[in-house]
Amino acid sequence: MNKIAVFPGSFDPITLGHVDIVRRAAKIFDEVIVAVGVNSQKKYLYSLDHRLDMLEAVFSSDDKVSVDHFKGLTVNYCKEKAAHFLLRGIRSSGDFDYEKTISQLNHVIGDELETVFLITRPEYSFISSTIVREIIKGKGDVSAFVPAEVNSMLNI
Amino acid sequence: MNKIAVFPGSFDPITLGHVDIVRRAAKIFDEVIVAVGVNSQKKYLYSLDHRLDMLEAVFSSDDKVSVDHFKGLTVNYCKEKAAHFLLRGIRSSGDFDYEKTISQLNHVIGDELETVFLITRPEYSFISSTIVREIIKGKGDVSAFVPAEVNSMLNI
Amino acid sequence: MNKIAVFPGSFDPITLGHVDIVRRAAKIFDEVIVAVGVNSQKKYLYSLDHRLDMLEAVFSSDDKVSVDHFKGLTVNYCKEKAAHFLLRGIRSSGDFDYEKTISQLNHVIGDELETVFLITRPEYSFISSTIVREIIKGKGDVSAFVPAEVNSMLNI
Amino acid sequence: MNKIAVFPGSFDPITLGHVDIVRRAAKIFDEVIVAVGVNSQKKYLYSLDHRLDMLEAVFSSDDKVSVDHFKGLTVNYCKEKAAHFLLRGIRSSGDFDYEKTISQLNHVIGDELETVFLITRPEYSFISSTIVREIIKGKGDVSAFVPAEVNSMLNI
Amino acid sequence: MNKIAVFPGSFDPITLGHVDIVRRAAKIFDEVIVAVGVNSQKKYLYSLDHRLDMLEAVFSSDDKVSVDHFKGLTVNYCKEKAAHFLLRGIRSSGDFDYEKTISQLNHVIGDELETVFLITRPEYSFISSTIVREIIKGKGDVSAFVPAEVNSMLNI
Amino acid sequence: MNKIAVFPGSFDPITLGHVDIVRRAAKIFDEVIVAVGVNSQKKYLYSLDHRLDMLEAVFSSDDKVSVDHFKGLTVNYCKEKAAHFLLRGIRSSGDFDYEKTISQLNHVIGDELETVFLITRPEYSFISSTIVREIIKGKGDVSAFVPAEVNSMLNI
Repeated sequence: MNKIAVFPGSFDPITLGHVDIVRRAAKIFDEVIVAVGVNSQKKYLYSLDHRLDMLEAVFSSDDKVSVDHFKGLTVNYCKEKAAHFLLRGIRSSGDFDYEKTISQLNHVIGDELETVFLITRPEYSFISSTIVREIIKGKGDVSAFVPAEVNSMLNI
Repeated sequence: MNKIAVFPGSFDPITLGHVDIVRRAAKIFDEVIVAVGVNSQKKYLYSLDHRLDMLEAVFSSDDKVSVDHFKGLTVNYCKEKAAHFLLRGIRSSGDFDYEKTISQLNHVIGDELETVFLITRPEYSFISSTIVREIIKGKGDVSAFVPAEVNSMLNI
Repeated sequence: MNKIAVFPGSFDPITLGHVDIVRRAAKIFDEVIVAVGVNSQKKYLYSLDHRLDMLEAVFSSDDKVSVDHFKGLTVNYCKEKAAHFLLRGIRSSGDFDYEKTISQLNHVIGDELETVFLITRPEYSFISSTIVREIIKGKGDVSAFVPAEVNSMLNI
Repeated sequence: MNKIAVFPGSFDPITLGHVDIVRRAAKIFDEVIVAVGVNSQKKYLYSLDHRLDMLEAVFSSDDKVSVDHFKGLTVNYCKEKAAHFLLRGIRSSGDFDYEKTISQLNHVIGDELETVFLITRPEYSFISSTIVREIIKGKGDVSAFVPAEVNSMLNI
Repeated sequence: MNKIAVFPGSFDPITLGHVDIVRRAAKIFDEVIVAVGVNSQKKYLYSLDHRLDMLEAVFSSDDKVSVDHFKGLTVNYCKEKAAHFLLRGIRSSGDFDYEKTISQLNHVIGDELETVFLITRPEYSFISSTIVREIIKGKGDVSAFVPAEVNSMLNI
Repeated sequence: MNKIAVFPGSFDPITLGHVDIVRRAAKIFDEVIVAVGVNSQKKYLYSLDHRLDMLEAVFSSDDKVSVDHFKGLTVNYCKEKAAHFLLRGIRSSGDFDYEKTISQLNHVIGDELETVFLITRPEYSFISSTIVREIIKGKGDVSAFVPAEVNSMLNI
C-alpha cells in the first residue's frame, strides 16, 4: 500500500521553507500531495489559480510530489485521497502548541490520521508566508525567501 | 532501499508513551530500531541487560521493530546501521526547544540525517521514565504507565 | 462569607473541557457563576440566548453552579457579584502567557481579585470552542467534544 | 468537610514568593499545610529542622496555615492528611510545562487529587530558592527576597 | 558616528512599559527615535496626530529622544535615518518567538540592521496597549498604566 | 563616560555563537569584557587557564574586546569594572524564561545594572558549549562550531 502524505496550507505564496519540508518528506513517503485548503472567508493576496500555478511551477520535476486543492475539513480530504499521514513543518515552540492541538484533534476525528512533523531548517526558520506578503506589499525584495520560479510570478 | 529509523533513548524503563511512538512509526518506516544509548557517566535504575530484556519482551511480536544498544554519538550509530531517519516523540513545547536544537545539529554532523517527530498522545503526555522511576522508588504503582510485560519485570 | 468564583467566557459553544473545569471548581468554591461575556464587536456562531440555553441545559442539576451574562470589564462584574475569585482553565504554555498577563492585570484593577487556575485534563487538552466551531462549519461530528445536552442543540 | 490544601516544597529557604502564595491560598481553603518534602538523595543548604523553624517563624500567626514535613510520594502524604488539593505557584511558561505534567500525574495516581495554581505576582516572579541560595553563597543581601523572620535566621 | 536606535510601534496609546524601555535605551544609544509605524489597513483608537502629540508630551524633556512616524517597511525607515539599531522590549516567551523571527528577518533584508532587546520590568510586564484600550473602552481607570501626560489626553 | 558591557560565561569552550554575539555587541558598546565566571563546584572540560588562552587567541585583534575572569556574583564584578551593562545572547524561548529571571534579579541587586539581549543568528542557534563538549567527548568534528583558533587548541 502506498504511503501518502498530505501537506495542507494556504501557500499564499509558497516559500523556500515549504519547499524544503516537501522535498525532505518525499524521502520518507511514497507520495506527497501539496494541497491548498480553500477557505471562502479568508482573504488571500494571490488567487487560488495563481497559487496552484506557482506550486505546479515549483514541483513540476519532483516525481513523488503532486499539487491539489480542497474545501472543508482536512481530515475528510485525507480520507478521500486514502492518505494516512499529514505532513507539517514546525519553526518554533509557539508553532508547537498549535500544531499539537490540531494533530491530536485530527487523530480523533480522522480515523487515526497520523501527523508527521519535520522541524524547519535554521536558515528558513524566520520565513513565513505572512512575512513574505508584508514585504511584497512594502515593495521589498523577497527573492531570498521564495523559489526562483515563484519570484518571477509575484506581480499580478 | 529500506527506510530505517532509529529511536534512541535510555528506556530506564520503557513506558507506554515510548511503545506508542514506536508502533505508530512502524507504519511509516520499513524498520524501527529501538536503540539504548549507553553513557558510562550516567546512573541508571536498571542495568543495560535488564533494559534490553524489557524491550525484547515488549516488542517480541512486532515484525518491523528490533532492539539494540550503542555507545558514542547517535549520528555515528545511524551511519553504521544505514539509517537515514531518527525518530523522536515530543510531549510539550518545553521538549520542543531541546529536540529542535539536537535535530538541527544531527542534520549538520550526520550527513543530512533526518529527524521525524511524532507528538505524544494526550493520554500519555504526562508519562516519562523520570516520573516512573520516582514512583517506583516511592513504592507506588506504575502499572498504568508501563507495558504489562515490563510491569512484571520492575523488581530486580 | 460565601466563596464565589466567576468563570467568564464566550461559550460559543461550551465544550466538555469547560464543563470539566466548572465541576472541578465546584468542589473548591461555594458557588461558581458561568458568565457569558458579551462583546458587541465580536461575531458569534450562536446567539447569546442560545448560548445561555445551552449552559442552562448542561448545568441544570449542578447545585453550586449558576449561569449568567455580563457586559463590560470582567472585574466590574465580579465586584457586582461580590465574587473574589476568577476561575480559568489552562491547556498549554501558550495559554499560560496570556492568562498570566490578564490575571496580574485583574489583580491590580480588580481590588485584589484572585485568579485560580486549573489545568485542563489531558483528554480535553485539544478541545477548544474555536476548533469545535470549525468542525461544525465543516459539517463534522463534535459529539466527542461537547456535552450530550449541547450536541442536540447545535443546529439552529 | 474541611477543604485542605497541601503546599509541598523544599523551602531551602522559604521566599517572599512562597509566603505570598500561601497567604492568598488561605483565602480559598479552610487549611493550608506547608509541607517540606524530604528527599534523602538531595543536598540542602539548610537542615530540615532549620527549615521547619523558619517556616514556623513565618506562619506563627496565620491561623489557617500549619507546617509539616513528609517522606515519599506527595500523593500519599495528601491521602494521609485527607487533603484533596495540592497548591502550586507558577512563575513562567517554563514552570508551566513541568507543573502540568506533575498535576496530571497526581490526578491519576492520587485518587483525583486536584492541583490548584496561583500565578506568582510580578514583583516576586524573579525570586526562587535557587537564586536566593546563590546570593547567600556569594555573600550578597537577600533581605528583599525572604521574610524578615527568615532573613535573621540565614546564618547557620 | 552617532549610534541611533529606532523604537517602532503603534503607541495606541503609549504605556509606562514603552516609556521605561525608551529611557533605559537612552543610556545605551546616542539617539532613540520613537517612530509610529503607519498602516493604512489597521484601525486605531487614536488618530496618528493624537498619538504623536501624546509622544511629544511624554518625551519633551528627554534630550536624546525624538518622535517621528513612517510608512512602509521598518528597515527602509532605518536606512533613511542612518539608524543601525532597532530597539524592542520583550515581556514574555510568547513575545520572544515573534520578535526572534522579525529580528532575523530584518537582519537579512536590512543590511545587517541589529535588533537590541530589553526585557520589560516585572511591574510593567502585564501592561500592553491592547489591554489599556480594552480598559478605556470599558470606562475603566488606566492611570496606573500610562504616563500622567497621556492620562489627561485620553478623551478625544 | 565609557559604555562597558560584561559578557559572562563558562566558555568551555567558546563557540562561534559566542563570538558572533561579542562582535555584534562591540558595535554598540565602547568596551566588551568577555569574563569567565569561576565556580569552584562546577566541573569543566578545559582548565580556566586554557579557556582564557582560547579567548585571548580568538579576540587578540578585536580592539574593543578584552578577556578576564571573576569569582562570586556577576553584579559585584560589574560594579568593580564600572560596567553598567550585561550582555547576553538568547537562542530560544526556553533560554528566555531563564534569562528574564536573572536579568530582573540583577537589576534589583546590581544598582540598576542593565541587561542587553541579542538574539543568536539562525545558523548558530543550535550550537552550545554543552553540545560541543558532547561531540568532543564522542571524538566528533566540531570545526564548524568553534573558531579556527580554538579548534586547534581542543586537545589537551
